[in-house]
Amino acid sequence: MIKTTLLYEGKAKKVWNTQDPDLLVSEFKDSLTAFNGEKKSTEAGKGELNNKISTELFKYLNEKGISTHFVDMLDANHMLHRRAEVIMIEVIVRNIATGSLSRKLDIKEKTVLPFTLVEFDYKNDALGDPKINDQHCMILNLVKDEADLEYIRYMARRINNILSDFYAGVDIKVVDFKLEFGYDKNDNIILIDELSPDNFRLWDADTNEKLDKDRFRDGIGGLTDAYSLVLERIQSRQGKV
Amino acid sequence: MIKTTLLYEGKAKKVWNTQDPDLLVSEFKDSLTAFNGEKKSTEAGKGELNNKISTELFKYLNEKGISTHFVDMLDANHMLHRRAEVIMIEVIVRNIATGSLSRKLDIKEKTVLPFTLVEFDYKNDALGDPKINDQHCMILNLVKDEADLEYIRYMARRINNILSDFYAGVDIKVVDFKLEFGYDKNDNIILIDELSPDNFRLWDADTNEKLDKDRFRDGIGGLTDAYSLVLERIQSRQGKV
Repeated sequence: MIKTTLLYEGKAKKVWNTQDPDLLVSEFKDSLTAFNGEKKSTEAGKGELNNKISTELFKYLNEKGISTHFVDMLDANHMLHRRAEVIMIEVIVRNIATGSLSRKLDIKEKTVLPFTLVEFDYKNDALGDPKINDQHCMILNLVKDEADLEYIRYMARRINNILSDFYAGVDIKVVDFKLEFGYDKNDNIILIDELSPDNFRLWDADTNEKLDKDRFRDGIGGLTDAYSLVLERIQSRQGKV
Repeated sequence: MIKTTLLYEGKAKKVWNTQDPDLLVSEFKDSLTAFNGEKKSTEAGKGELNNKISTELFKYLNEKGISTHFVDMLDANHMLHRRAEVIMIEVIVRNIATGSLSRKLDIKEKTVLPFTLVEFDYKNDALGDPKINDQHCMILNLVKDEADLEYIRYMARRINNILSDFYAGVDIKVVDFKLEFGYDKNDNIILIDELSPDNFRLWDADTNEKLDKDRFRDGIGGLTDAYSLVLERIQSRQGKV
């Protein structure tokens, strides 16, 4: 599949059109941003790791019956996927309180939440991705039907269950993560974007060592080593190593 | 009813215990704050106007079958009301986009919303009253049962319908407002707090002139004149002038 024109460039990916109008190619970049773009860096090899980790997780979710945009990994930095109309909601799923949740609502860091929390943020960098409720989603015309919001919450919880179990098998805790969804050409809601440690907080189950982008946010360093460890553990479970 | 000990002092009211454990007295102050307490002032007569306006509206709601904490107006600055366990949610009801909604979600000022929007803010000054969803309310133990949140939304819409109709009769538009609710001694949810132009954006129906605390927020002046006009119009409808 050959990239044609650039459709969109984001903070961590470029998305390209292809000869097939139903298919796109995502190119995973090495650039990193945090705090709504205020902190920036580049980590050689990060894009490749995110592409490989996302590929493994999309394949696993597809095996479990979850509809995603994933089609194939093309090479180290490129993923082939279906075109979707992006739903401009960042779906935040939280199992353990940390980061902005702890700060904004004064919930003690590392509190295991009594149930999995699903939050909607308006995907709008200029506005700082504000928290919104279902009624805001309707007023902003972010979904085609109010029931779509219930379905998105349901899918977010399903995906959390599947991936938390998967990661538990390789001694990693899924603390929280961000998902994005889109409408496919038949208006089915499918999982899109990426499933990498850029968007998932992952802690070592024994030591609580951070294996995700918080290493960059917190200035700890060792980011690609941590992402490599995540990939190795995933591959060990998949029986590929 | 005689005030005994001070139970609580807020930005615009003092709340006193009385000899009767089920009853409290609210003393309406002339002080004004905005922008989460950053801007402060005092307007002589404001407390009295808010007490009188709130009294008229609580009486009207009670006549319409809405359960409120209101018992009686005692004198110019004092209201007698039932004790309630305050639910720490600021219930924001919006008919027309303005203020923080327009700013935070980039919705054009004065847009008439396609339906009445009900938002929940966590009533917590130190945290800046952040927006929360139903799941946050449960995690923070703000209500006794998840169904209470549906009931609060339902009541907020009912109260909006009643008060919007009431104010329309005196040529005032109800743009948006903040309500608070509490549990009475039998765990019934009742409307508490005040119903004044400190918490209601009210625009003249013909001229869109602001008749509320935005005159202070925006530095327009003429605040007590505007509140007096609101009270006069309410009293004219009530057949008292």
